[in-house]
Amino acid sequence: MIRSPSTTFRPPFVKLLNGGFHTGRQEPVSEMSSNEAKSEAVVAYVRLNHDRYLSELKEYVSIPSISTLPENKKDMERAAQWLKAQLEKMQFANTAILPTEGHPVVYGEWLKAPPGSPIVLVYGHYDVQPVDPLNEWLSPPFTPTMRGDRLFARGAADMKGQGHAVLKSLEAWMTKTGGLPVNVRFFFEGEEELGSPHLEAFIAKNKEKLTSTFCLNCDGGIAAPDKPSMVYGLRGLEYFEVWVRGAESDLHSGRYGGAVANPAVVLAGLIDGLHDDDGRVTLRGFYDKVRTVSQEERDELNGHGFTDDEWRKSAGVKTLYGEKGFTSSERVGIRPTLEVNGMLSGFTGVGQKTVLPATAMVKISMRTVPYQESAQIDASLRDYFRQYAPPTVTVDIKRISTGPYAIVERNTPQLRAASKALEQSYGAKPFFELEGGSIPVVGLLKNHLGVNTVVLGCGLADDKLHAPNEGLHLPTYYKGIEAYARFFGLLSSPTT
Amino acid sequence: MIRSPSTTFRPPFVKLLNGGFHTGRQEPVSEMSSNEAKSEAVVAYVRLNHDRYLSELKEYVSIPSISTLPENKKDMERAAQWLKAQLEKMQFANTAILPTEGHPVVYGEWLKAPPGSPIVLVYGHYDVQPVDPLNEWLSPPFTPTMRGDRLFARGAADMKGQGHAVLKSLEAWMTKTGGLPVNVRFFFEGEEELGSPHLEAFIAKNKEKLTSTFCLNCDGGIAAPDKPSMVYGLRGLEYFEVWVRGAESDLHSGRYGGAVANPAVVLAGLIDGLHDDDGRVTLRGFYDKVRTVSQEERDELNGHGFTDDEWRKSAGVKTLYGEKGFTSSERVGIRPTLEVNGMLSGFTGVGQKTVLPATAMVKISMRTVPYQESAQIDASLRDYFRQYAPPTVTVDIKRISTGPYAIVERNTPQLRAASKALEQSYGAKPFFELEGGSIPVVGLLKNHLGVNTVVLGCGLADDKLHAPNEGLHLPTYYKGIEAYARFFGLLSSPTT
Repeated sequence: MIRSPSTTFRPPFVKLLNGGFHTGRQEPVSEMSSNEAKSEAVVAYVRLNHDRYLSELKEYVSIPSISTLPENKKDMERAAQWLKAQLEKMQFANTAILPTEGHPVVYGEWLKAPPGSPIVLVYGHYDVQPVDPLNEWLSPPFTPTMRGDRLFARGAADMKGQGHAVLKSLEAWMTKTGGLPVNVRFFFEGEEELGSPHLEAFIAKNKEKLTSTFCLNCDGGIAAPDKPSMVYGLRGLEYFEVWVRGAESDLHSGRYGGAVANPAVVLAGLIDGLHDDDGRVTLRGFYDKVRTVSQEERDELNGHGFTDDEWRKSAGVKTLYGEKGFTSSERVGIRPTLEVNGMLSGFTGVGQKTVLPATAMVKISMRTVPYQESAQIDASLRDYFRQYAPPTVTVDIKRISTGPYAIVERNTPQLRAASKALEQSYGAKPFFELEGGSIPVVGLLKNHLGVNTVVLGCGLADDKLHAPNEGLHLPTYYKGIEAYARFFGLLSSPTT
Repeated sequence: MIRSPSTTFRPPFVKLLNGGFHTGRQEPVSEMSSNEAKSEAVVAYVRLNHDRYLSELKEYVSIPSISTLPENKKDMERAAQWLKAQLEKMQFANTAILPTEGHPVVYGEWLKAPPGSPIVLVYGHYDVQPVDPLNEWLSPPFTPTMRGDRLFARGAADMKGQGHAVLKSLEAWMTKTGGLPVNVRFFFEGEEELGSPHLEAFIAKNKEKLTSTFCLNCDGGIAAPDKPSMVYGLRGLEYFEVWVRGAESDLHSGRYGGAVANPAVVLAGLIDGLHDDDGRVTLRGFYDKVRTVSQEERDELNGHGFTDDEWRKSAGVKTLYGEKGFTSSERVGIRPTLEVNGMLSGFTGVGQKTVLPATAMVKISMRTVPYQESAQIDASLRDYFRQYAPPTVTVDIKRISTGPYAIVERNTPQLRAASKALEQSYGAKPFFELEGGSIPVVGLLKNHLGVNTVVLGCGLADDKLHAPNEGLHLPTYYKGIEAYARFFGLLSSPTT
C-alpha cells in the first residue's frame, strides 16, 4: 500500500543511499557470485514469461476480495485458496489457510536452502479496498482491463501485482535452479486494508512460523519507473468511528426543527474543533512525544522531496493546506495528521427528505509518527468528545484499528541487497524515503519478534491506490519480478 | 404532512377557537338542515364500511410511490392510476393524469351541486418519503401491517390515509344521496415530498381547472384522538444541497494526509459557522423580516402549547436545544430554523477505508416564517459560502426546492364549518394551532389564485411521519372520514 507520490518528480523525503555498497555494475562479470550468475539466468527466464504472468495476474485480480464488506467473505476465501495453490505448485511445505478472528492468513514455507542461509519472511496481503465511488471507474473494478501499458483493476497495484510478482520470482528460481537461494516463509494476510485488526494476536500465537532473519514486505513501490526508491519509515494509523446521537429516531424537520439539537450540526462543530486555525490537531498532548527532527534532516527531506507546486499537481488540488510552519513534504513525512475519512448523517439520496437526523457518524483517523503513543491518542480523543459534546447528544467512540509507525535501520545487509537489486533491475541507484502511509505489520513484527523489515515493491505513485481506476504499470511490474529474483540471489551472495 | 406533536398532551401554539360559532351539539335535531340530516345518514353508512375501507387502503399503501427515487417511477404511475380509478368509479368528469416536468397531477371534477354551491378544491399528494433507515422498520414499509389499532406502512399517515379518507367520504355521499353536497375538484400531486418543485408552474398553467371557492388540504392532522385541532399557519421550506470539492479524486489518506485540505473537515467548519452560540442562524439578514409576534400571542401559544418537558418526551431527546430567548413552542411555531437534513463524505461502510475524500455534501433546509423572503435566503446562503469557504475548496450550491410559509384567516365560513365537523366527529371543540411543518401548495394557491386553504386531516403526532415505522391510527382515520363527510354537508348548510 505504500507508494511515493511521484512518477515524474522526485519522491518526497528522499535521501541518496550512502555510498560504500557493492553494486553489480562495478564488478566484472567473472567475479559474480554463483547465486548472482544464477539470478541472471532466472531473470532471463522471467523475461520469456511475461504473457503467462499477465494472464495469471488477471485471474488473481478478478477475485473481489474486499475485506471490509461482509458480502465478499466468499471471495476472500477464494483469494486465499488461489494463493495457497500457488505455493503448492512450488512444493512449499506446510501450506495452510490459518484462521484469525477475522480473515485468514495464507502460509507456506520452503526451508531447504544451504545451511547458514537467511530465512526471509515474505509478507503481503490478498485483500483489497472497496470500490466506491463505482461510477467513476472507466472499466469494472474486477474486470481487469488494459489501457496503454497499465492493467486496471481494484487491487492490481495494492497489492495483488506485487504479491504475484514475488511469487513469480520464487517460481522462476524454482524452475530454473530446482530450489531457492534462501529459505522462505510465505505470510499473506487478508486484513491489511482493515488496519490488520487481528494480526497482532496472530503474530503472538504463531511466533514459530514467523521465525525469520528479516521480513520482506512486498506492499511497496518505487518513486518512478526509472527512479527506484526504498522506504525507511512509515507513519502509524489509528482509526476510529464516532457516533453522535440525538433523538431516539429521526424526526420531522418541520415539526421539531428549532426545538431540538441536530446531531449533524453538533458533529460538524466537534469536527471543526479538532483543528486550530494553524491546522494543528487540538487533541491534548497530540504533539508531546513527536520526534524532534533536526533542521539538517528537514533540509535533506525538502531537498529531495516534492516542491509545493509538485505536491499540488500530484494531489490534484488548487491550493495546498496543512500544519503551519512545515512544508508539504514535512507535513506528510515527519508530522502526524488527523483526517476525516467518512461522514454520514440523515438523508443523502437524490432530492430531498425533510428529516432531522437522529444520528451523525464520522470516521476519523490519525497518521502517527515516532514516538506518539496509541493509548494516549485513544484517551485524548475520548476526552475531547467528553469535554466538548453538548448535553443534547450522546457520543459513542469505537476504535476500528491501531497500527504503529515504523522506522528501520538503513545500513543493514538486507537493505544493501535490496538497493543493489533495484539498481540492477531499474538502472539507477535508489533513494531512501519516508512514507506517509502505514503498514501495521512492520511495527508489529519489530515489537513482537524483533524482526526488521525491508519494504520492496513495484507500485508507482499514480497507481491510484484506494481510488477509482486503480491500475498497475506493467513494465514496472515485470522489472519488479526481476528485482525480487535478484534480491533473493544477492541475500546469500558474498558481495553483499 | 402536518401534524401537531402530541397525542397525550396539548398541541403547541393552540388557541381556543373563538366562540360564537354554531355547533351541531347546541342545536335540536329538528332544526338540522337537510344537508346535515343527510350527513348523518352518510356517516352511518361510513360506519358500516370500515373493513372494506381498510382493505382498500392497504392496497393503496402497498404501492411504493417514493417520489425522490428514480427507480420508483413506475410505482408513482401506479399510484396515480389507482387514484384516477377511484375518481372514475364515482363518476367524476374530466379525470386525467396531467403531466408536469416531474411526477404528474391526478385530476377529476364533479360540478353538479345546486347553483350557488361552493367549489371545493380537494388537495392531497400520492407520493411518500423514502424508507431509510430500512433496518429500523419492524415490518416491511410497503407490506401494510396491523399492530394494535395502527396500520404500519410508509405513507399510511403521510398522507395516503387522509387521501383515502376524503375519497371515501365523497364516495359515501355519492352512494347514499346520489350526488355531492358541494362541487369538487380533486387535485392530488406527486411531488409534495420533494417540496413540490413543479407545482407552481402547474398552477400557473392550469388556473381554470383549479378555479375554486377554497382549497381543502387533506395533508393534516389533529392534536390527539380526543383533541381535534386546526392549523392556521405553516412554516415555509427552502431546501439546498451544498457540495464542497477538494482534490480531483479521492486520495490516499497516508500519502497525502496533512498536505491537502480535507473537504469533510472544511464542510464541518462551514456548517458549524451557520449558527452562533445562541442557536441563532448567522446568515446575513436571516431575521430581518421575521414577523414580530406580540407578547400576547406568545403567551397564548405557550399557554396552549407543549411544556418543555412535554416537548422533550415527544421528541425523544434528553435535552432540548434552540434559539436563545424563546420557548420550544415558540422556536417551532414562530421562529425560522436552519437544519442539516443529510451529510455525506468519503467512506461510510463497515470498517475502514483510508481515504482522504475528494468531496463532502450537505443537505441544508430552512423552515421560514412570515415575512422572510425566499430570494433573500438563497442569496445570503450563497454569500456565506462565498465569504467563508477557504481557497482550498470549491463550493457548489444547488437549490432543491422552495415553498412559501402560509397564514390563513381564522374566521371564515369554511373554517367555521371545519370546526363544527371536527367537534361533531371527535366530540370536542377544536383548537387553532400554528404548525412548524410546511405544505408548499398552501402559499402557492394563495399567491397565484388568491385561494385560501382549510387544512383538515386525520393524522396524529405519533404517526412517525418521514421516519421508520410510520403508522396510521385507524380509529382516528375512521372518524376522519366522518369529519370530511360532515364538513362537505356543512359547507352548504345555512347554520354555517
